[in-house]
Amino acid sequence: MESLLKAAGRLPLNVKFFIEGEEEIGSPRMIPFIKKHRQQLRADLSLICDGSFFAPERPALVTALRGMVYTEVEVHGADRDLHSGIFGGAAPNPLEGLARIIAGLKDRKSRVTIPRYYAPVQPPGEAERSSWNQLGFRDEAYLEDLGVEVAPGEEGYSILERRWARPTLEIHGIAGGYTGPGAKTVIPARATAKISMRLVTDQRPQAVLRAFTRKVQRLTPPGFRVEVRQLGSGAPLALSPDAPALRHAARALQEVFGRPPVFMREGGTVPVAAEFMNVLQAPPVLMGFGLPDDNLHSPNEKFHLPNFYRGIETVIRFMELLGEG
Amino acid sequence: MESLLKAAGRLPLNVKFFIEGEEEIGSPRMIPFIKKHRQQLRADLSLICDGSFFAPERPALVTALRGMVYTEVEVHGADRDLHSGIFGGAAPNPLEGLARIIAGLKDRKSRVTIPRYYAPVQPPGEAERSSWNQLGFRDEAYLEDLGVEVAPGEEGYSILERRWARPTLEIHGIAGGYTGPGAKTVIPARATAKISMRLVTDQRPQAVLRAFTRKVQRLTPPGFRVEVRQLGSGAPLALSPDAPALRHAARALQEVFGRPPVFMREGGTVPVAAEFMNVLQAPPVLMGFGLPDDNLHSPNEKFHLPNFYRGIETVIRFMELLGEG
Repeated sequence: MESLLKAAGRLPLNVKFFIEGEEEIGSPRMIPFIKKHRQQLRADLSLICDGSFFAPERPALVTALRGMVYTEVEVHGADRDLHSGIFGGAAPNPLEGLARIIAGLKDRKSRVTIPRYYAPVQPPGEAERSSWNQLGFRDEAYLEDLGVEVAPGEEGYSILERRWARPTLEIHGIAGGYTGPGAKTVIPARATAKISMRLVTDQRPQAVLRAFTRKVQRLTPPGFRVEVRQLGSGAPLALSPDAPALRHAARALQEVFGRPPVFMREGGTVPVAAEFMNVLQAPPVLMGFGLPDDNLHSPNEKFHLPNFYRGIETVIRFMELLGEG
Repeated sequence: MESLLKAAGRLPLNVKFFIEGEEEIGSPRMIPFIKKHRQQLRADLSLICDGSFFAPERPALVTALRGMVYTEVEVHGADRDLHSGIFGGAAPNPLEGLARIIAGLKDRKSRVTIPRYYAPVQPPGEAERSSWNQLGFRDEAYLEDLGVEVAPGEEGYSILERRWARPTLEIHGIAGGYTGPGAKTVIPARATAKISMRLVTDQRPQAVLRAFTRKVQRLTPPGFRVEVRQLGSGAPLALSPDAPALRHAARALQEVFGRPPVFMREGGTVPVAAEFMNVLQAPPVLMGFGLPDDNLHSPNEKFHLPNFYRGIETVIRFMELLGEG
């Protein structure tokens, strides 16, 4: 920014910086902040440089992000831990109750059983779908990378569709009873599971949370009491690849990297991106410069330095193109 | 013993002491020890003073103990933890796989689905069943004590039958994924559950373990790998209330406490008792002097002192009666 200002004497457009430090915990304070300061933050578009290339030398622009509702489900049985010798077979076991609830949340085709869960889901358009077919994504390479023979998931959809365009439901942790070494014959008084749903347009997090809570209550067997707590949420986002901001971004990427970007989706959630869209009506351009082998959030995380410098050039070029209109 | 020896000059029978210090961990070394020293340990019967009265002032003799197979089931998915945004919907989630396995281990009537699981089970005789009806056991008091409205378990059997005469399957702990405070969007690489089965005659622990393992493998969805490990086992025990040793024990209890004992079963497992029976052919007399409110294995555990002294008298009287033949 400063170099552009020095070189050109002036910027081709007005710029507001917005620094987000809590994305990894679901931006709980950021979203009310945006709502409160919507006048001050007004903008024609937003640029978020969080994301990756589709492959080395294949820049990408993200047209959709999944939203999320993250919950904790707690199942209660007896009012104290019990000995399975004395009470086994004639007492509620919350771990079993929880397992039955979880098993009931999907059917045999791995479809989520929450009523009307899929009803608002918009399928990707033909253009988007056909562009995915040209990405060179190979199921075999994906499975080999994970070290599995099949990738369980919703029947009737490709792996890429399930990751980018379908909502899902995942269990992130279960706690309850004795989990140390060896044997302990306890029937615990309670058990908890962390369960999240990734959402796609036009699913609304709060409506999904309510429907999920009702479904969990219905799946709870007699003899148990259940609580559902929300631990986080974020709306899904979808943009048209034809939006002017994305066309300018695509041109900037092509000029700097020598190849047109692919239009892809991401399965993850960046809550602030949906808020830029929904609250500020500022379409977010998600232009990331990471590489798929950067080991994001893992040991030995790295950043490819050539992408760092060419990323700066790309952002400069993007601003120039925007300024030219 | 010493007081009887001093008072009477001689004991009415030969006595061998056998001190067990690992009952709470399933007697892993005790059972091979008994097998190895079976000649030296030979006896006509064994007396185990581990157990409780049925109610205050209601002494009891135990005619059956449940056996047990205790296992750990480990489900593996991908070869590393995954991010649910990137991979959710298109990767094996071991916590979900485990939940589906657990849910599949019982049917809608809470019957264990392991093939032929119930085939060897001997129902209690008429005499035993009618004596239970006279115990004054009240379902309402039991439910109130646990703080629950219903006691989930195998359909078609009373609470007492389910605790004393029916085999069962309980989950003692599940570990996997993130269980700390807040949200983490991990799909863990593996998840484990501790699962035990309480067995009744004539179920054999090793046969049950094999059938359980096969069932777990069949219930494992595609995309997962499963391991079943045995963490402990003990055979079930059942005695006839008409056995001479039990008749003498009943008479001794009646003389000292002024009331005939009730014949009851216990749902727990005392592995060494079954070994006394099966290896030494020495029927174990389970004559305990605890009270139901002793808070066994819990904070503020106690022992009722009058039962301690009257227990000594009872054992002396038992030996005298045995000596008289």
